[in-house]
Amino acid sequence: MNEFVTARTDFATAAKGGLSPAELEAVLRQVGAERYHNRHPYHHRMTGGDLTRGEMQAWALNRYCYQAVIPRKDATILARAEDPAFRAEWRKRIEDHDGEDGWSGGIARWLHLATSLGLDAEMVKSERQALPATRFAVGAYLSFCANRSLLEAVASSLTELFSPVIIGERVPAMLAKYDYITEDTLAYFKKRPDQASRDSDFALAYVTEHADTPERQQLAIDALLFKCDVLWAMLDALQHAYAESGKNIPPGAFRPEDAR
Amino acid sequence: MNEFVTARTDFATAAKGGLSPAELEAVLRQVGAERYHNRHPYHHRMTGGDLTRGEMQAWALNRYCYQAVIPRKDATILARAEDPAFRAEWRKRIEDHDGEDGWSGGIARWLHLATSLGLDAEMVKSERQALPATRFAVGAYLSFCANRSLLEAVASSLTELFSPVIIGERVPAMLAKYDYITEDTLAYFKKRPDQASRDSDFALAYVTEHADTPERQQLAIDALLFKCDVLWAMLDALQHAYAESGKNIPPGAFRPEDAR
Repeated sequence: MNEFVTARTDFATAAKGGLSPAELEAVLRQVGAERYHNRHPYHHRMTGGDLTRGEMQAWALNRYCYQAVIPRKDATILARAEDPAFRAEWRKRIEDHDGEDGWSGGIARWLHLATSLGLDAEMVKSERQALPATRFAVGAYLSFCANRSLLEAVASSLTELFSPVIIGERVPAMLAKYDYITEDTLAYFKKRPDQASRDSDFALAYVTEHADTPERQQLAIDALLFKCDVLWAMLDALQHAYAESGKNIPPGAFRPEDAR
Repeated sequence: MNEFVTARTDFATAAKGGLSPAELEAVLRQVGAERYHNRHPYHHRMTGGDLTRGEMQAWALNRYCYQAVIPRKDATILARAEDPAFRAEWRKRIEDHDGEDGWSGGIARWLHLATSLGLDAEMVKSERQALPATRFAVGAYLSFCANRSLLEAVASSLTELFSPVIIGERVPAMLAKYDYITEDTLAYFKKRPDQASRDSDFALAYVTEHADTPERQQLAIDALLFKCDVLWAMLDALQHAYAESGKNIPPGAFRPEDAR
């Protein structure tokens, strides 16, 4: 078994004859249009104002596991990059998330989001009450970037191409539909669109330049599919555990006060 | 973030003062009694005769990913064991699953189960239509055995202590409640109780001997909790995707004919 089988037939033949850089970009954007987690029911419930406060807390708590691993994922990529110019560019991602002292970047802002929703900071940071499925998905992402080619690791970051879209859907809806959420709660998202655009521009240029055979193009497409699967599985796990009044919360995981 | 945070407060203090081997065994059996996947709703639906044929196929298809990785997981453990006698004992697990020629052991018997349910062998073996959450859980198990201590890797196998129970619940119910399931379909399960008892006796003796400090006892308990989480998450993913007429099947995953 290959624990990272990711190819899907619907995208698997796209690269058979070899694609131009523009055509490859179009396929990658098609993957996002069809598979990015802004199409997931949990996201729709969030933007529709339908999440309970406990579901919002569970989302923040579980997503913290993802946020917290991002700089380690990027350090893994950095460690494998031989080109100093690539490393200098990619290094910015670690700086963005860790900040000057480890707790003044994106991770700290995500923790602020979680505590603003009423969660205890140490509980969130310990990750002990996160869903096991979240940890498995996040661990798969880290392993993927450690074990696959540099091209695939970079391509898996391309979900950032689509993150300005989801943030644009998420933030106004969260402010409008949940009275306990303020601009301050969501400070994390202020900086992300610019950072994500800078990062995904660089990553997309790298991928379209280095995916220069049909085989490598397929690997890049599959890497992005894999990453979409990671994000989708995280929302599937939240939906399963916390919708229906929390009746499917797995043993040991976070139980919000309003899970009846 | 530690992608394998597994400690749970309800078992976390058990080992504070240090446990005798018999007490440690009792805690490990308590973990199984509370957390093993024979307590999961999907298992109850299976034994209650309530799974659709598509749900039964999805179970076999996804569980194949787990079966297929077991000998690799055991080889990882073998590769890290310095004691020839330990290796000679543990090697039997690989022989059980791969058989004489790779396709005459447990994996082949599981594949037979899947094809007897009407699935195509090559589709099952490719694992492409398995749920991403299944692959992430199985990948986490493989990573755990590669990255944690030998004691933890061995302790994570101790779910086998409980497998004769679940097989004893599963097989008679499947034969009684699903007219398309025969003794031949379930040939896999014939050999498993004896193999699992032999293997878990050895593993339990190893763990109770080598978990000789409170810290190591906690690691062993946490390893078994982690493994229970893996099995539980696999059934959660099936339940989420395939119950409710398959309306939550993630993109690219198996769609049974009877998912309406």
